[in-house]
Amino acid sequence: MSTGWLYFIYPKSNNMEKHFESRIIKLKQDLECKNIPGLVILKDANIYYLTGFYSKDSGSILAFASDEIYLLVHYIYFETAKKSVLPKNIKIIKYYQEKYKKLSEILEGYKIKNIDVEGDNISFVDFSALKVMLAKAGKNLTSEPGIVENLRIVKDEIELANIEKACSISDKVFNQIAATNSLKIKSFSEIGLAFEMERKSIKYGSSGKSFNYVIANNSASSIPHYEAENKNIKNGILLMDFGCIYNHYCSDITRTVFIGNFKNSNKICQIYDIVSQAQSRAIQFCKAGASTQEIDGIARKYIESKGYGDNFGHGLGHGVGLEIHESPRVSYRDDIILKENMVITIEPGIYIENFGGVRIEDMVIIKKNGCQNLYKSSKLYTVIK
Amino acid sequence: MSTGWLYFIYPKSNNMEKHFESRIIKLKQDLECKNIPGLVILKDANIYYLTGFYSKDSGSILAFASDEIYLLVHYIYFETAKKSVLPKNIKIIKYYQEKYKKLSEILEGYKIKNIDVEGDNISFVDFSALKVMLAKAGKNLTSEPGIVENLRIVKDEIELANIEKACSISDKVFNQIAATNSLKIKSFSEIGLAFEMERKSIKYGSSGKSFNYVIANNSASSIPHYEAENKNIKNGILLMDFGCIYNHYCSDITRTVFIGNFKNSNKICQIYDIVSQAQSRAIQFCKAGASTQEIDGIARKYIESKGYGDNFGHGLGHGVGLEIHESPRVSYRDDIILKENMVITIEPGIYIENFGGVRIEDMVIIKKNGCQNLYKSSKLYTVIK
Repeated sequence: MSTGWLYFIYPKSNNMEKHFESRIIKLKQDLECKNIPGLVILKDANIYYLTGFYSKDSGSILAFASDEIYLLVHYIYFETAKKSVLPKNIKIIKYYQEKYKKLSEILEGYKIKNIDVEGDNISFVDFSALKVMLAKAGKNLTSEPGIVENLRIVKDEIELANIEKACSISDKVFNQIAATNSLKIKSFSEIGLAFEMERKSIKYGSSGKSFNYVIANNSASSIPHYEAENKNIKNGILLMDFGCIYNHYCSDITRTVFIGNFKNSNKICQIYDIVSQAQSRAIQFCKAGASTQEIDGIARKYIESKGYGDNFGHGLGHGVGLEIHESPRVSYRDDIILKENMVITIEPGIYIENFGGVRIEDMVIIKKNGCQNLYKSSKLYTVIK
Repeated sequence: MSTGWLYFIYPKSNNMEKHFESRIIKLKQDLECKNIPGLVILKDANIYYLTGFYSKDSGSILAFASDEIYLLVHYIYFETAKKSVLPKNIKIIKYYQEKYKKLSEILEGYKIKNIDVEGDNISFVDFSALKVMLAKAGKNLTSEPGIVENLRIVKDEIELANIEKACSISDKVFNQIAATNSLKIKSFSEIGLAFEMERKSIKYGSSGKSFNYVIANNSASSIPHYEAENKNIKNGILLMDFGCIYNHYCSDITRTVFIGNFKNSNKICQIYDIVSQAQSRAIQFCKAGASTQEIDGIARKYIESKGYGDNFGHGLGHGVGLEIHESPRVSYRDDIILKENMVITIEPGIYIENFGGVRIEDMVIIKKNGCQNLYKSSKLYTVIK
């Protein structure tokens, strides 16, 4: 193995180190079981999960080769990596350019014939380039997606604590919004309210928003992933899909409330009740051993039975953790059996174009005989006067 | 061609439409010239550039097949797409699942043997799946990266106006920060100041930050991509790398200022002068016909001549537009000849671990005989008292 590069083994000793090390042990067991001697990991969240080093879009590489682990980071991330990588014996290597070439040179030193890479986290162009480089070193490159994501699907104690904290911050933010009056709310634009909600979440200890908030007033609420605009909030529907990040972990919550008097409030009230019922029923069904397809079906069939089947065009929910959307998908498409300590959203909605929509979303931790709702924010039909 | 899906041709008529249509005409000429009868485009910014529809991470697909154009969007983006797509004759198709299957079914209706895809914007796993599907329809899939990015590298009139506006907003934000006193600045944490700067940029008309701000106090400033922390700002170095988004276009600026009295201010002042000189010299060299490698070399050699060559570990700059980092890279690695109306950053820096760093960054529009600096913010050595 060439040793021409600067690398660094950082001495660390605290409890967090053990948590990260135990994840690495689990991954190594998995790799042994699957007969994978070399694995290249590229997704930021996966690298953080195993090392403690997080930098969005840093383009870093974590490589497992036999019993050794390398973290390749660009010059501009080297100092951060040295300060944040927790498990001992991860070799931190600085590169200035051509990271895949550097990786190939490292792997050349090992008697491994086949290297796997996260095929869903590498572009076709990069995969092809790396394959050619490794071939020159006598190695074959294949795709093995989802290995670390599968480990991350069940959350450990530290992860759950971070997620709970993120959710409790979002609860506080919602409660403050719900407790204001309509004049105050209407003094904001959609973008302004989104920003105010993020500001509050930072005040309560988060590092910011976990995604671009959907703050949708009136007919805009029929667009599930609407982007808040610079227009003043008026009487009517106010759908707020928001969340924050605490220690790299995300919260995700939607509440739909109503401001003052408005046209069609009767119809909206009926729709609200259907969505609310659909959500409660699905949550009641959540427990270890239940299937995601069945849970989706409970909410979907209820909404269909009320005549709004065509107005609920997305899946019921998704996993949340280091990423705002992660496994498992809770949908009619996927049949995954829930396990204890998975964290998922349950978020049915009814959307009517040019009229409006309602969505209600909670996050739950799956337990042996049920689930724990991570939010206390009211789901009653709320009119802000 | 199967016509079993819902699709929509939206009638629009205003001047913006012509701008987007002229980009499509250019792309079509390019495709004809390169003998590409079918192209699949996946990057959000590329799709916006050609259609007017923007939704971050929406997973949409824009497909050119012979003379026809399809935009495939998930159910949750359909309403937004209908309202924002500007060129006539783009068929907007709604899917609920299996977008690549739907794409294959559309392409099956055309007598095209080879389909190209943006190979740098599709994962290896997705490329492989699409290749198999298209093979069943008798078609071959190949990778053709960078076609739309190459069109985007030279900005048109509307793009330049949006970029100028974004930069003028960032100028205003900096001027307000520079005009405050040190007590006020020190009342913020790094995260708090980042947030306050974003708030100001929204107040002045932007839709928010163009990336996670680097607000780095004292020794943290030696980390080029440092992430702001929840710690109070103190006397010393304050490096601020920030920017905003206006009509989807980004600004990017760095200023390093100094707060009150602090240790080592003499050494920092010398370093500041070197970075400032390096930046001015590079900017003076920017004009149509100059090479990016030469421009990088001017700043790099100057910094090397002062003994800090090892402390400038990143490229000199990058293109900015719909993306915060886009072509061309201004670096010792790439030799690209600048053209009129390219927009690039010039941002040399000197970073000393556990001590601190200085970076100064401007954005410039390349002109025939020079360049236009998009910022007016002072670059004098500034001490906030």
